[in-house]
Amino acid sequence: MLNDIVENRLIASLVEGFRRSPLQANGLHQTDAEIVRLNDLCSIAITTDSIAEEVAVGLYADPWLIGWMAVMANLSDLAAVGAQPLGILISEILPPGYPSESLRRLQQGICDACEACKTFVLGGDTNAGKQLMITGTAIGVCGGGRFLSRTGCHPGDFLYSTGNLGIGSAFALSVLLPGCVEQFERDPIEYRPKARIREGKLLTSFASSCMDTSDGVLATLDQLMRLNCLGFELTPEWTDVLDPRVSQIASERGIPDWLFLAGQHGEFELLFTVPENIAARFRERALADGWEPRLLGRVITEPEVRISLYGDRVAIDTGRIRNIAGTAGVDPGRQLVELFAMDEEMRGALVEDCR
Amino acid sequence: MLNDIVENRLIASLVEGFRRSPLQANGLHQTDAEIVRLNDLCSIAITTDSIAEEVAVGLYADPWLIGWMAVMANLSDLAAVGAQPLGILISEILPPGYPSESLRRLQQGICDACEACKTFVLGGDTNAGKQLMITGTAIGVCGGGRFLSRTGCHPGDFLYSTGNLGIGSAFALSVLLPGCVEQFERDPIEYRPKARIREGKLLTSFASSCMDTSDGVLATLDQLMRLNCLGFELTPEWTDVLDPRVSQIASERGIPDWLFLAGQHGEFELLFTVPENIAARFRERALADGWEPRLLGRVITEPEVRISLYGDRVAIDTGRIRNIAGTAGVDPGRQLVELFAMDEEMRGALVEDCR
Repeated sequence: MLNDIVENRLIASLVEGFRRSPLQANGLHQTDAEIVRLNDLCSIAITTDSIAEEVAVGLYADPWLIGWMAVMANLSDLAAVGAQPLGILISEILPPGYPSESLRRLQQGICDACEACKTFVLGGDTNAGKQLMITGTAIGVCGGGRFLSRTGCHPGDFLYSTGNLGIGSAFALSVLLPGCVEQFERDPIEYRPKARIREGKLLTSFASSCMDTSDGVLATLDQLMRLNCLGFELTPEWTDVLDPRVSQIASERGIPDWLFLAGQHGEFELLFTVPENIAARFRERALADGWEPRLLGRVITEPEVRISLYGDRVAIDTGRIRNIAGTAGVDPGRQLVELFAMDEEMRGALVEDCR
Repeated sequence: MLNDIVENRLIASLVEGFRRSPLQANGLHQTDAEIVRLNDLCSIAITTDSIAEEVAVGLYADPWLIGWMAVMANLSDLAAVGAQPLGILISEILPPGYPSESLRRLQQGICDACEACKTFVLGGDTNAGKQLMITGTAIGVCGGGRFLSRTGCHPGDFLYSTGNLGIGSAFALSVLLPGCVEQFERDPIEYRPKARIREGKLLTSFASSCMDTSDGVLATLDQLMRLNCLGFELTPEWTDVLDPRVSQIASERGIPDWLFLAGQHGEFELLFTVPENIAARFRERALADGWEPRLLGRVITEPEVRISLYGDRVAIDTGRIRNIAGTAGVDPGRQLVELFAMDEEMRGALVEDCR
C-alpha cells in the first residue's frame, strides 16, 4: 500500500541495499525523525531537510522566511517524535554575488527560528552554487528513550491537530498563482509556522500515532493510513479546524474548503491520535499546558480518508492527490487544476448518487 | 589572525548574532565536528558537509565517488575529534531526469563508504534541483566525553600525519587540468580516501591537537597555526611522507613537490601533534594497532609554516595560498598559476639570499 505513492517508492529504491543500524529504533517511514538508542535512558532523534524546491519555484522568496523554514521544518520533525531539540546544523549553498543584505536576512531568519524554539545553531557548512539552497539537520533527545511514532493507532482513537489547518496551502496559493498575487500583495498572508515542540513532548504520554503536516493535511493522513492499514473519518464539523483566514479566502474566491487540506505545502501542525479512554485526561493536561487540541475526527477500520462534503460522506482519493506532485517538484498551477478536477468529479458523483 | 583568511571571515560573519548552546563543548573553529555534552559520560559529535562545488567543477564526475565522498568527508570530521560514528543522514538534490544507473552508482558509493567504516545511513531527504548536490550529516559519540580539538599543542610537540600526503591535490590536478587529463585517462589516479576513525579514537589518549586535511595539508597547518598562535617546521625529509604516486607525477611533469601540499583538495588524513614525552609510547600503541604515524615535523613558537625547499628553510605564505580560492569556489587553473608564481618568487628570493 505504501508503494502506491511515487515518493514512497523513490525512498524505498534509494535505501535498497543499505543496511540498517542495530541501534536505530524506528523502521523506514515509521517516524518523522530517526531515532538512535544510546542506552536504556537516552535516545537521540535526528532529521535532515533541505529547502530547495520551495526556493526554486519562488514559494519562499523572502530570505528571512527561507532561514526560518530551514530551521522550523527540521524542528517540526523533532516535535513529531516528541524530542527536545539540542540544536541544528545548517549547510548553505550560496550563489556567487548573493546580496549581503539578503544573506543578513537569511541568517536572521535562522536566528529568530532558533530563539523562538529555544534552540541553537551548532555548526554548518558553506558552498558556492548556482541556486540558493539550505539544508538543516536537527538533533534532539528523547527523554527516557520514549518517542512518538506514526504507527500504533487503533480504530476508535480520536484524531486531533495541534492547531488550525490550511494556512500552508493558502500561503502557497497566494504566492504562486498569478491570479492571486495582486490581491495578496495588498493583504499578504503571514506564514510563520512554529514547531510544536512542547506539544510533542506532552504527546509522548498520550498519543498512539503522530506526524507533522509538512506536506499538507491529506498527504499526512494518507501516509498514516497506509502505515497503519487503518483510515480516518473527519468530524462533520471539520471546517471549524480551518484557519479563519483560510475560510475567508475560500469563500471570497470560491475555492472549495477541502482543497486547503489537499495542497502539499503544509502548516507544520502535528496530527495525532489518542485512545478514547485517555482522551479526557489528555485534553485536561493540554489545556493546563496552555494549548487546545483541535478534534478532527476518529480512526476507522477501513483504510480511507472520509470527509463530509456537499452533504454527503466521501472517501477522498488521497493517493491520487499525493501523486499529482510526484517527486518532480511542485507545479502549483497543475496541482490546482487537478484538484479542481477532482472536486468536479466528486460533485458529479454525488449528483449521480442522488438521482 | 584567523580573520586574515577570507573563509574564516565569512564563517564569523555568518554566525554573528547566533547564540551558542550552553551544552556545546567546542568554540567556533576549534574542532572538525561540533561537540554537544549530554552528560558527564557522553558527548555527541555532529558535523555536516555538502558535496556541491566538487560536482559543479567536475572534480567528482563518477557518481560512485560522489556518494563515497559525501559519507567520507563527514566521517573524517568525526575521526578528527576522535568520535565513534553512529551513522549519517543524506540529503540529495537530484536533477530531473538524473539517469537511474547514475543514481544506482551514487547510492552504491554511499553504501560502500558506510560499510568501509562500519556505519549506517540513518535517514535522509530528497529534493529536485538543477544541480546534483549531496549533503551529509554524520553523528557519533565521544567515549567518556573525551574529544580531540584543533587547539592545545605546545612548542616542541611532534607533528604527524596518519598516512601519506598529496594524493588529494594530485587527483584534482589529474581531473581538472586540461593538459593532464589525457595522460591520466590512460593511467587514472585512484582516489578513495577512508576516514581515519580508528586512528582518531587512539589519538584521544595522546594528541595535543588534531585536524583533518580535507582542504589540503598547508591549509590545515595554516588553520592550526592561527588557532594555536604557534607554527610548524617540517622535517628536512618531509618529501618521504608524500604518496609515491605523487612523487612520480611531480618528477615526470616537473611540478614542484610542495605544490601537492598546497592544493586545496585534500587526502583526508589527520594531522596531529603529540607531546615529546609521550611520543614513544604513542608510536608503540599505534604500531600495535596496525598503523604507522608518519613524522612530519615539530611545533615551533613562531607562527609560521617552515619547510626545507631548494636547499634552504623557507616560511610559506599559507594565508596567501588559502585566499587564492577564497570562498568563491575552486578555479584550479587560476590556483595553479598562482602557486607556480609563488614557487618562482621563493626560488628568486633564495637566489637573492645567496648573492
